[in-house]
Amino acid sequence: MQTQGEKPATVFLVGAGPGDPDLLTLRAARVLEAAEVVIHDRLISAAILDLVPEGAARVFVGKSAGRHAMPQAAINELLVRLARKGQRVVRLKGGDPFIFGRGSEEAEHLHRNGVPFEVVPGVTAASGCAAYAGIPLTHRGLASGVKLVTGHCKDDEELDLDWRSLADPDTTLVIYMGLANLPVLSARLIAAGLPGSTPAAAIASGTTPRQVVVRSTLKALPETVSALAVVPPVLFVIGRVVQLADVFAGDATEIPLAVREEPANRPEVVPFVARA
Amino acid sequence: MQTQGEKPATVFLVGAGPGDPDLLTLRAARVLEAAEVVIHDRLISAAILDLVPEGAARVFVGKSAGRHAMPQAAINELLVRLARKGQRVVRLKGGDPFIFGRGSEEAEHLHRNGVPFEVVPGVTAASGCAAYAGIPLTHRGLASGVKLVTGHCKDDEELDLDWRSLADPDTTLVIYMGLANLPVLSARLIAAGLPGSTPAAAIASGTTPRQVVVRSTLKALPETVSALAVVPPVLFVIGRVVQLADVFAGDATEIPLAVREEPANRPEVVPFVARA
Repeated sequence: MQTQGEKPATVFLVGAGPGDPDLLTLRAARVLEAAEVVIHDRLISAAILDLVPEGAARVFVGKSAGRHAMPQAAINELLVRLARKGQRVVRLKGGDPFIFGRGSEEAEHLHRNGVPFEVVPGVTAASGCAAYAGIPLTHRGLASGVKLVTGHCKDDEELDLDWRSLADPDTTLVIYMGLANLPVLSARLIAAGLPGSTPAAAIASGTTPRQVVVRSTLKALPETVSALAVVPPVLFVIGRVVQLADVFAGDATEIPLAVREEPANRPEVVPFVARA
Repeated sequence: MQTQGEKPATVFLVGAGPGDPDLLTLRAARVLEAAEVVIHDRLISAAILDLVPEGAARVFVGKSAGRHAMPQAAINELLVRLARKGQRVVRLKGGDPFIFGRGSEEAEHLHRNGVPFEVVPGVTAASGCAAYAGIPLTHRGLASGVKLVTGHCKDDEELDLDWRSLADPDTTLVIYMGLANLPVLSARLIAAGLPGSTPAAAIASGTTPRQVVVRSTLKALPETVSALAVVPPVLFVIGRVVQLADVFAGDATEIPLAVREEPANRPEVVPFVARA
């Protein structure tokens, strides 16, 4: 227990990357190794949790779609309480803590309460999952930029996205946590001007042994994803770069350098190949 | 030397992260440790080059603004030649190889030539540099998405960006390699509707011991960056989240939850504090 005037311990807000423990940063691995308490949610893979030291406590504060195992305010309070006890706390987050991780809300709460913290950036799901699915996020002539948005909305609110600015054929669009809203996402993007034939992929459990990649078109994606009963976490990648997976996933006989008029509608389920 | 019919060695296209060697992934560190030849450019920090094994050859193919030490086609050919010799080649790239790294062009060339490759994703400059500068890329009520673009253009061409879609106050805009075009970037974004008072930061040599963070407004950024003679590599972060650096860089007495009408024009040079 912290005594009067004693400084609370530093809380580490750590990005664990998209799932493959090999994608942890050296700093994340080192901080995790020294943890006394690890607070994590559902997006942390089993293989990463295996790296938590034996003596350390694990607190699951997981969130499933529409359900919070522990409300954000309670998580914030827990972090402060443990830090004041002098415990070495690692708050482990999927991907990068400062991209859709609510890490900044936790950091703000720690700051307000005089608890020092360190943010350890991580490989965000967009780059990790796309690379493992063979999709470059930028490529000369196909995509000059990348946009990351979340397709999740609070409770029953409607998705509040700037559809017109998202419907940009020169930008790769990556949507985090959009599974529940996929039909709306697809329809709105098409209505805003993005061709229904735009190549699109759904990457489920990216970079883990359960990785499944479904490739389709923007228009057909909701149907194919639903037919294949894809389960979260799912990341969507929409844009011309998705066609390059033909090259980079190593299953093509020729290299499609130009966008096909009408990409094949057939979904492709590419099983994850474990590396040597 | 590879004999007829022998399979070429796998080339590793490795993201080295933004500079701090602690931000290498475990996989990147392991692959680097086993390298026989390391091919790198100017963006790889000295501290990361120190991790190249003693016996390994280092080939600098660096690019400075406007100058290529080695043309891309020659780099592509070099990778193929070394792989065919059976050498264990690591192509080390700043950040993530599939985000503005031209990694996909190299991968495509390797594929065309029957050379197997593996992409090791890395922490992209946007998340690494922003976290070390105390700037979350998303934050409830301030930014619902992130857009990554490059401010660099080929030779003397004009910047070809969709200014209207970039001028979105709800999206954090991160510009890679934009130093030479900063005055144009600032003016065009303002002309497209983004308020000149939007908080903006320039992060030079992010996550390295030479990191310098300059905070200003979109309008004043070119002048302050020029007055301080900031040198590349520089990353710009533009958006309301930049104000949170007051909290997260730990130098504020109160938390600014709303965007200031006219943020202080004074540049802030925040020296990098080495971690224990």
